[in-house]
Amino acid sequence: MTQAWSPVVFYRTGGDAPVVLVCEHASAAIPEAFGGLGLIADAAVSHAAWDIGALDVARGLADALDAPLVAGGVSRLLYDCNRPPTAPDCILPRSEVFAVPGNADLDAAARLQRQTLIHDVFHGAVQGLIAAQAARTGGPVALITVHSFTPVYHGQRRAVEIGFLHDADPALSIAAQRIEAARGRYRAELNAPYDATDGVTYSLARHAGAAGLPTTMIEIRNDLIDTPESAEAMAAHLADTLSQALAAIAAPAGAQR
Amino acid sequence: MTQAWSPVVFYRTGGDAPVVLVCEHASAAIPEAFGGLGLIADAAVSHAAWDIGALDVARGLADALDAPLVAGGVSRLLYDCNRPPTAPDCILPRSEVFAVPGNADLDAAARLQRQTLIHDVFHGAVQGLIAAQAARTGGPVALITVHSFTPVYHGQRRAVEIGFLHDADPALSIAAQRIEAARGRYRAELNAPYDATDGVTYSLARHAGAAGLPTTMIEIRNDLIDTPESAEAMAAHLADTLSQALAAIAAPAGAQR
Repeated sequence: MTQAWSPVVFYRTGGDAPVVLVCEHASAAIPEAFGGLGLIADAAVSHAAWDIGALDVARGLADALDAPLVAGGVSRLLYDCNRPPTAPDCILPRSEVFAVPGNADLDAAARLQRQTLIHDVFHGAVQGLIAAQAARTGGPVALITVHSFTPVYHGQRRAVEIGFLHDADPALSIAAQRIEAARGRYRAELNAPYDATDGVTYSLARHAGAAGLPTTMIEIRNDLIDTPESAEAMAAHLADTLSQALAAIAAPAGAQR
Repeated sequence: MTQAWSPVVFYRTGGDAPVVLVCEHASAAIPEAFGGLGLIADAAVSHAAWDIGALDVARGLADALDAPLVAGGVSRLLYDCNRPPTAPDCILPRSEVFAVPGNADLDAAARLQRQTLIHDVFHGAVQGLIAAQAARTGGPVALITVHSFTPVYHGQRRAVEIGFLHDADPALSIAAQRIEAARGRYRAELNAPYDATDGVTYSLARHAGAAGLPTTMIEIRNDLIDTPESAEAMAAHLADTLSQALAAIAAPAGAQR
């Protein structure tokens, strides 16, 4: 019988914090229905296929913050859930270093299938979780997405270790970066190694933009989180930073009322 | 770390038949976030929690027909995906024989969470799969849902073995029942042991009604499919009946053109 697969996985949906965690690139899985995309073995387990360590950090954050998490269930090479269906790079025919033969010359029906079964279901789940968590907690929730990046990109070593990226509303990212810098343990920067102009803040804009929710997209250099133990330690560290940052952006608004 | 769960599972999404299979009550799983709903052990594995054997038959049909299948990933006791959010029985406080303590006195936020995380995601997936399969196959698809029922209900033995239930458009159900009756192996009836007036054709009406897609809801007495082997045999049998029924309802329309 054919293999079961799901585009979306929930964790800690009993969590009571006014926070929703999202991990779009959590999985490297390519269900057999997609024929392995013709990838070579190295590609199928590389950063091209998923964000190494990101799910481990996101799960650790969910537990530390007592917040629900929605994660992707399949490889971003099938469909990159942090890109809209209109983006040329939502289904990549080649990554930085690997060809993706199964994505070359996809017809419109095959593209639509990836969109409806992966993108639409995933973002329906994000939308539903935000609405549910707002109802559970009695107010707006913060949306925090968790990603990782490679230490070397196109031959250049990246010095940044943690990035806090923002879309329209920078407040949570700025607060988190300042706290992280003050703690002094990691080299943390704002809008690095990417920023919104690279088209990487789709999930933030789609789900939080119109609602005006606090958001940040966390990017972690994957050599810091490529074992379960290091990812767990990073999650514990970031949970402290995020808790302080959420408190910091809540305080002034409360004082103004 | 907390348990992962998903409200929806896909099978055989590479299938090329103009058919979409749906199995709303495929799973008895109750993720730990819902605290087991306070069920006694017997209830958690009974027909109250899922349709025994239905997923095995649906997977067998998917393989035999070369058609994709979308199945529920959690127990219908959390949310019955074959009921609209407005139905009083979408979240049951008690089944035929079991109390469901975790469903008693749910507040609005808890009900909304069940709806958005389970119902909305599941039906988004059904809608997406129908659109994708129509695009892949170049025309409208038939929607077939797979269920099972108990041999005894409120003390009454049920003689019917297979039911084909319809919503507004009866053509596929009538054709399937006639073929099944002619084959003579099972006692097959139309609109038994339930019919649309019992509120059981929500998925058919929601996804096929306005589009005018051919539909049928198959109900199988669960003593006929409660082992993997018997379910596989039933799937092989029903695949023949459904193939003939789909051909029968297609032929007159073709002849009229």
